[in-house]
Amino acid sequence: MFTVVGERINTSRKNILKAVENKDEDYIRNDAVKQERSGASYIDINAGTQIGKEKEAFSWLMDIVQRATSTPLCLDSPDPDVLMSAYKNIKQKPMINSISLEESRFAPMISFLKGKDCKIVALCMSDNGMPATSREVIERAGKLIESLESIGVKRDDIYIDPLIQPIGTDFLKGLMAMEALIQIRKEYPGAHFMCGLSNISFGLPERRIINRHFLALMIGAGLDGAILDPLDDKLMTTLRISQMLIGNDEYCMNFLKCFREGKIHP
Amino acid sequence: MFTVVGERINTSRKNILKAVENKDEDYIRNDAVKQERSGASYIDINAGTQIGKEKEAFSWLMDIVQRATSTPLCLDSPDPDVLMSAYKNIKQKPMINSISLEESRFAPMISFLKGKDCKIVALCMSDNGMPATSREVIERAGKLIESLESIGVKRDDIYIDPLIQPIGTDFLKGLMAMEALIQIRKEYPGAHFMCGLSNISFGLPERRIINRHFLALMIGAGLDGAILDPLDDKLMTTLRISQMLIGNDEYCMNFLKCFREGKIHP
Repeated sequence: MFTVVGERINTSRKNILKAVENKDEDYIRNDAVKQERSGASYIDINAGTQIGKEKEAFSWLMDIVQRATSTPLCLDSPDPDVLMSAYKNIKQKPMINSISLEESRFAPMISFLKGKDCKIVALCMSDNGMPATSREVIERAGKLIESLESIGVKRDDIYIDPLIQPIGTDFLKGLMAMEALIQIRKEYPGAHFMCGLSNISFGLPERRIINRHFLALMIGAGLDGAILDPLDDKLMTTLRISQMLIGNDEYCMNFLKCFREGKIHP
Repeated sequence: MFTVVGERINTSRKNILKAVENKDEDYIRNDAVKQERSGASYIDINAGTQIGKEKEAFSWLMDIVQRATSTPLCLDSPDPDVLMSAYKNIKQKPMINSISLEESRFAPMISFLKGKDCKIVALCMSDNGMPATSREVIERAGKLIESLESIGVKRDDIYIDPLIQPIGTDFLKGLMAMEALIQIRKEYPGAHFMCGLSNISFGLPERRIINRHFLALMIGAGLDGAILDPLDDKLMTTLRISQMLIGNDEYCMNFLKCFREGKIHP
């Protein structure tokens, strides 16, 4: 199964920001329900642009979403404080986004995660910045997996984010991510993956079609989760067809069901 | 570089059959020129439906195409006699499609290929039929490569066709082809690949979009050649973007050039 984290409830989106400012519960509720119906496995909550009032906005958003849907949440903040405070009000096992190797995030998140039951997104980011080679991605993934397992997190709850970088800046960055995934699957079988896709096409024209093809290629390399817009019909079509082609859709039943429901968009 | 074999000059296509029957040279010429302009590396000639008169139709078609374009030909027939006769009139190093492990094809093709300078498509087909597992594809590819090399064919001139089979019949057939390619690249580095894509979607709805995604996934697995319609804009877009994403488009220059020329079709 592919884990779709619905990315829409994010204050960097204009309409979400407006809803937060106007306390427009209906708008948030409606958006969350649409994501759930479109196949989100988790609904991401991100109020990162609300500097100084992130915690309050976060808590308002997650309360509405938890009441409106039965889909678990992905708590998405670079600030361990916001994540810890949000976690207290959670109703189902959440995904937490994220831990990284950056000093300001690593230690507080490790001590917070001890004994908690949650999925965790682990970013291959360190205080040296983005990884420069696939070997560096693999090494950082290894450190994260080993640290998390040492405090009792199950491998099945770990989602490695290799950090997608633009091919417009370095045309080998797509290959680098794919190679890293293939190798991490060999060295750490059972770990999962999660990433955003759109960075790959930064600075290039026709970004949506590049992103879709990157999703297909990454699925071929072993990607089994992504944070994306589940209301993007063409992207979801790519997801479903790629899953079918790599043998993850028994008897093509899910594809045929989606086709009958008008969910396959060329 | 990805080798595009333009598949259009094939008497199984209604318009080509009509042109052959009416001796309509203009139609064939025009079609060949369009394939050349759209990026065909080879133009395939196939008169396989012309039972009893294949040799004559083949020779008529290839003469027209050779005069109309400067693109080399892919001589495509299951009949070694037709290939040998066509080879006599060739003006540039051709691709020959194909040899296989079937008794009726293997021995005559091996003796024909000895000392000739051509590219050869090697089908993973034997008298036992289609390969059932990726291991079987790999073994057959190995036999073909070793036999061809033993008579002096360079590995760089060998194009392995893993034979694509419908996922509608066995939903693991796409994965099987991808796994075979990955392993053949390891065991026989430098060999190339060639295949038709459309069998993958046989029996399913929305075939064209399935075929496109399969092309992307196969490119991720190492496919570096395909027989396809270079006038299919969306398929060629998938080809170009996938090549870029796996790092085969330095500085994304080819993609950007195609974008400026209006050749990127979402």
